[in-house]
Amino acid sequence: MNDAEKPELPDAANAADGDTVDAHAADAAHGSGLSRRAVFGVTGAVVGAAAVAGAGGFAVGRSTAPTTTTTSYEFLGDHQSGIVTSQQDRMHFAAFDVTASSRDELIALLRRWSQAAATLMAGSELGTGAAGGSYAAPPDDTGEALDLPAAKLTITFGFGPTLFEKDGEDRFGLADKRPDQLIDLPKFAGDTLDPTFVGGDICIQACSDDPQVAVHAIRNLSRIAFGAAAIKWSQLGFGRTSSTTSDQVTPRNFMGFKDGTHNMRAEETELVNKWLWSEPEDGQAWMGGGSYLVARRIRILAEIWDRTSLGEQEALVGRTKGSGAPLSGGGEFTDPDFKREGRDGEPLIAPDSHIAIAHPDHNGGAVMLRRGYNFTDGADNLGRLDAGLFFLAYVRDPRTQFVPIQERMARDDLMTVEYLRTTGSALFAVPPGIPLGSDLGPEGAYIGQTLFA
Amino acid sequence: MNDAEKPELPDAANAADGDTVDAHAADAAHGSGLSRRAVFGVTGAVVGAAAVAGAGGFAVGRSTAPTTTTTSYEFLGDHQSGIVTSQQDRMHFAAFDVTASSRDELIALLRRWSQAAATLMAGSELGTGAAGGSYAAPPDDTGEALDLPAAKLTITFGFGPTLFEKDGEDRFGLADKRPDQLIDLPKFAGDTLDPTFVGGDICIQACSDDPQVAVHAIRNLSRIAFGAAAIKWSQLGFGRTSSTTSDQVTPRNFMGFKDGTHNMRAEETELVNKWLWSEPEDGQAWMGGGSYLVARRIRILAEIWDRTSLGEQEALVGRTKGSGAPLSGGGEFTDPDFKREGRDGEPLIAPDSHIAIAHPDHNGGAVMLRRGYNFTDGADNLGRLDAGLFFLAYVRDPRTQFVPIQERMARDDLMTVEYLRTTGSALFAVPPGIPLGSDLGPEGAYIGQTLFA
Repeated sequence: MNDAEKPELPDAANAADGDTVDAHAADAAHGSGLSRRAVFGVTGAVVGAAAVAGAGGFAVGRSTAPTTTTTSYEFLGDHQSGIVTSQQDRMHFAAFDVTASSRDELIALLRRWSQAAATLMAGSELGTGAAGGSYAAPPDDTGEALDLPAAKLTITFGFGPTLFEKDGEDRFGLADKRPDQLIDLPKFAGDTLDPTFVGGDICIQACSDDPQVAVHAIRNLSRIAFGAAAIKWSQLGFGRTSSTTSDQVTPRNFMGFKDGTHNMRAEETELVNKWLWSEPEDGQAWMGGGSYLVARRIRILAEIWDRTSLGEQEALVGRTKGSGAPLSGGGEFTDPDFKREGRDGEPLIAPDSHIAIAHPDHNGGAVMLRRGYNFTDGADNLGRLDAGLFFLAYVRDPRTQFVPIQERMARDDLMTVEYLRTTGSALFAVPPGIPLGSDLGPEGAYIGQTLFA
Repeated sequence: MNDAEKPELPDAANAADGDTVDAHAADAAHGSGLSRRAVFGVTGAVVGAAAVAGAGGFAVGRSTAPTTTTTSYEFLGDHQSGIVTSQQDRMHFAAFDVTASSRDELIALLRRWSQAAATLMAGSELGTGAAGGSYAAPPDDTGEALDLPAAKLTITFGFGPTLFEKDGEDRFGLADKRPDQLIDLPKFAGDTLDPTFVGGDICIQACSDDPQVAVHAIRNLSRIAFGAAAIKWSQLGFGRTSSTTSDQVTPRNFMGFKDGTHNMRAEETELVNKWLWSEPEDGQAWMGGGSYLVARRIRILAEIWDRTSLGEQEALVGRTKGSGAPLSGGGEFTDPDFKREGRDGEPLIAPDSHIAIAHPDHNGGAVMLRRGYNFTDGADNLGRLDAGLFFLAYVRDPRTQFVPIQERMARDDLMTVEYLRTTGSALFAVPPGIPLGSDLGPEGAYIGQTLFA
């Protein structure tokens, strides 16, 4: 079967009898050069929802539908979407090896990706104009999200250290643009890294309330990259483990505890400005308005954790399992009182508990914007689920906001030491967004453009 | 840290100062022998939703909440839940090796599983009574679903051929109870099976609209099985690829096409009775009211498929990609007319298209109840997504309703031959449900009881 010998092309004019072939009312556009949207017969009314960009790069959809899944976010903005955006429930994350051999090819890839990301985030299918709509050509869009709304999709791009220099080679003339903050992460105690899940030249984080929408985005961006970049590893996250805006309920991680209670929230402008966004004076001006993304694939030794008593679990975490309140009392959002003692004169929150080690008060005030997800990837050969936390955190400087805290946790935090094994690790420089009003055309703006200026 | 030295136990009476320790109003029940629900401070009002069992084993929750995610289904019924139940959006599936050494241990496992399944499906935490609620004991429930509603969770159990006889050994005295329908599936053309994803003594299918609820169920059932069964393999499915009730919109598979349009629906009583439920006269009386579950992990060679023209894709499937209508005309649910010819005298639907090969009219009227899911499990070493269709189908007799159709597809259906690779395969006998009104206590009813009678 090939297109040349396709006399059975089923448009209405081709039917042998005179009946109306309803199915092809829309498909009659085949071969006419109309957009894929027209060819597939999926209208904007199904897919579309207006969106307004908020000042901080996050947006609230003005959907008229009763559900929130039609909400779409704006790709353009001072900051990339998917950072302070109210955290979506599901995620697909992919790290790519860049195989392009020149700077121009790399820029062309980033341009294609930017155009596609804007389209995908709007809930539209990929493909427009003269290249689309032909029966004889492969569809521009793989199609599995055709009937689905945007479902709050955000797409966020990051650059790994190896994009700037790999094996001593400055492939794209970017070596002197590498930010000091974009370090090679050290090996921490407890790291049992699987090379499969380490590093990557570029990462794409796709978050959505519908996993099919997030997977569709990664799949199509991967397809668009053909010949210029290939997926090195990817991770599906099925449930968020943090909240990025204050209206979100704190979710639970795979240890059964509420996670990220003291997460930085989008509305905390002072914290966000101090600890999240890179400023030109941080060193590399091109990163102004960007941030750094730490990705860690942390397996939870669930079978062992699950055999630990409730009292021990709470003591290790420093919070109650039910409400998530600190053991010093109050409710979930009460500040922990590390000095408060029980009748025995010992602090109610143990100094080697997780919240004591990780709390900003014990780390020079440093906070991070966490954006992690629960994952499970089948079972290992001992019949244990390979499951845990795909830790994602955005920081202004990993050298002060991640490495020292992780070093302390890996050494002193008994919960981390005894029940967690980190199997994947990567760090990415997340460039600023593309300013509102920019043109995304063939010669237009693209993600990471300041790096190449 | 251990429980013996836990004077810092944070109940109100233990606080050194006189302040009220709000966080522990509920936690004050610690050690008092109250249920885990009380200990965790999660009330039935958050979790619970009343449910009524329908005649066919599927139920509609009478939730007062505006969303449907609080809906819960009844575990008890003539048939197991999760078969004709309106198909949920997400799934976690696990196949277990039974490691129990005696029939009594196996029965004890099935009893524990039945009790737990009923609790989980009601949206409640596991653990009640004297065994629960102690600070000194591990929590009965791992906790990650504590704040989540039932989200339409169903849990379905099946027995693989190796439960009846393994390597010639009749471990549990069940060899003469093995149904003729529970065959060893043949190797089909195009099968490239990974031993990781083949077979299993027992399977559990957990479906829910919330993946965290489904994963929590499998994790806790696996934990309860400790010492008696261990997970052999598991599969997460992120989006349904079929509809089991007529009110559901037809979803799309990873090829971008609507899938399962001609699926048997729960309301088609005549088809359901003829093609789905096992009857006592089928051979093994204990399977009356049960069914057979075919599980196939089918990788889609997406990169190749995606380079195929739209015309070729539609010709291979026999339907339009947009509306899903057969190429002979009409709408999605119009019956295909395999005789209708184009102007060239050739049939509009090619005889080697997928719908022509698989259609009931060409297979003695045989239909199956499909219940599959899209999956993606990272990337392979060529940078391609390991993604596709986790095919699940319930049939009354796999020998007539699955094997011959699959043999034809694997040989003649060009879509299957060129673009699909089956990497996992298993068949399970799904026993009938536990009758309504049964007691699930220590000496009470359990799933599969008719097999051991």
